[in-house]
Amino acid sequence: MSLDEKATKPHDRLAEALAADMDQVNALIRERMASEHAPRIPEVTAHLIEAGGKRLRPMLTLAAARLCGYAGPYHVHLAATVEFIHTATLLHDDVVDESTQRRGRPTANLLWDNKSSVLVGDYLLARAFQLMTDTDNMRVLNILSNASAVIAEGEVLQLTAAQDLRTDESIYLQVIRGKTAALFSAATEVGAVIAAAPEDQVKALYDYGDSLGIAFQMADDLLDYGGSTVSIGKNVGDDFRERKLTLPVIKAVAKADAEERAFWSRVIEQGDQRDGDLDHALELMHRHGALEATRAEALGWSERARHALRLLPDQPLRGMLADLADYVVERVR
Amino acid sequence: MSLDEKATKPHDRLAEALAADMDQVNALIRERMASEHAPRIPEVTAHLIEAGGKRLRPMLTLAAARLCGYAGPYHVHLAATVEFIHTATLLHDDVVDESTQRRGRPTANLLWDNKSSVLVGDYLLARAFQLMTDTDNMRVLNILSNASAVIAEGEVLQLTAAQDLRTDESIYLQVIRGKTAALFSAATEVGAVIAAAPEDQVKALYDYGDSLGIAFQMADDLLDYGGSTVSIGKNVGDDFRERKLTLPVIKAVAKADAEERAFWSRVIEQGDQRDGDLDHALELMHRHGALEATRAEALGWSERARHALRLLPDQPLRGMLADLADYVVERVR
Repeated sequence: MSLDEKATKPHDRLAEALAADMDQVNALIRERMASEHAPRIPEVTAHLIEAGGKRLRPMLTLAAARLCGYAGPYHVHLAATVEFIHTATLLHDDVVDESTQRRGRPTANLLWDNKSSVLVGDYLLARAFQLMTDTDNMRVLNILSNASAVIAEGEVLQLTAAQDLRTDESIYLQVIRGKTAALFSAATEVGAVIAAAPEDQVKALYDYGDSLGIAFQMADDLLDYGGSTVSIGKNVGDDFRERKLTLPVIKAVAKADAEERAFWSRVIEQGDQRDGDLDHALELMHRHGALEATRAEALGWSERARHALRLLPDQPLRGMLADLADYVVERVR
Repeated sequence: MSLDEKATKPHDRLAEALAADMDQVNALIRERMASEHAPRIPEVTAHLIEAGGKRLRPMLTLAAARLCGYAGPYHVHLAATVEFIHTATLLHDDVVDESTQRRGRPTANLLWDNKSSVLVGDYLLARAFQLMTDTDNMRVLNILSNASAVIAEGEVLQLTAAQDLRTDESIYLQVIRGKTAALFSAATEVGAVIAAAPEDQVKALYDYGDSLGIAFQMADDLLDYGGSTVSIGKNVGDDFRERKLTLPVIKAVAKADAEERAFWSRVIEQGDQRDGDLDHALELMHRHGALEATRAEALGWSERARHALRLLPDQPLRGMLADLADYVVERVR
């Protein structure tokens, strides 16, 4: 690998290697998000889908299929499916979270209304399942319907587990599997399945996606408290203000004495937050090594993702996926 | 047929004939609505699914499969699928319509919150697709994912076509196909498909469900203006107050002179409703024969449903389905 290649982000190198496939995915997305009768549907969808998302998830499907030697047309359908499921999830999430901004633009629920976001999300989910039936492969339907159930279950769990100090690391893991890792692992697994890859490669690509998603989300949750280095433009403490029980808080709560516990109960469970509380929370996290421990776990999952790839063919795409596993935790390294 | 049998409602006779199958459907629904991690899911689902709905849609699937001689186990999965899709739709509809009552009880969005209704609906949709993959029949997946897309598209169309006097009968038909008929026709069609029925029977059962759903919804929209006889406990004029462009209004608007058009524009498009407006609207509908014409169309679709059944085996179940087609318009006959 030349120095130049090394300097390019692994995500951009993947995008370049998969450019022809991705053009087809984008064309299929545009075709299938149309609605003969209800123009509101493509309006809302385009607002979100053309807002410059990184298309990471569909790229995972394409990369997995190509890495397993797939030469047919259906990895394109599956990649579009994955992007539709992701987009539907974002539309519903923004309603649930009452968000007003996404990717630096006003959310659909703000520009149109909650009704449109709910119904267009439903339409995209239905379209996703239609796209899957085109592949005529029951196993990919099974994988992606399972992933959809895990995603929704994780969201409901987050709704009920939020603001409850009894939330432990195993519940946190279930929540982030639903929130992020379930679609990552389904995206890579269906790429292997459509390529009729051997079972150990299917399993390896599932493990890669699962570990990558968990590492990605843990790094994100750590960065919300400033990470271990500098800020990345994200407001520090958003999760704190929203009283979310992410891993850094869970780890600090687990080591809290009675006085600290009362503090966490006040700011997270009761939502009574005052000036200086975020600083005190950060101080407690540092005192108990909660940020450092979260960082170690994120790096561990990244390493697991990289390790899972050893069972796959030694090709440039494998190297890019391995670098991607490093990249998602680079911000906290 | 004895007098006693004749006196029983066709819906109840279907329920009796399909009781053993329906027990299995109910058991499967209870099993699949569970969630290991998020108890909120079965709570919300049970509130709606055990509220004494008539299970009309799953019964259509069971009846279609049995009528086509099916002896396997998967009509039960498909019936549960249809009920899950229906329940998910109701959960999302109540959020979209900001409803507070359903089947005489407070809605889930009122008892819990909009978030839970959106996410539990998503969970049930995912569960529906999981159930379908159990059948290992790609064609039923295709039919039911198409139906899901038509349902969501119809809802979005209703959102944008509502309160716009340019809405005509063809748009109305698309809306009620989405709202009601698409799931009826998918329910009967998949029953025939899983039974591997000949194509003319599959088509006949699709036509039956489609016509039955349209007749049902037209009768419902007519009853909202009091029907042609007595009231049935439903508040007359709910649709009027919600400014919905249903068939009786569309027919009256089509024959309106300039002064009448101004009236409709004020009460429906601008939503400026005053005392006596509902009475005046009813008077205009009577003047132009809009209620009578709606009634005639509902009866025509009911007759079409009955007619479609002629291609199916002459068995007691066929008679019950034919009587059901009469029954859905009996309230307006």
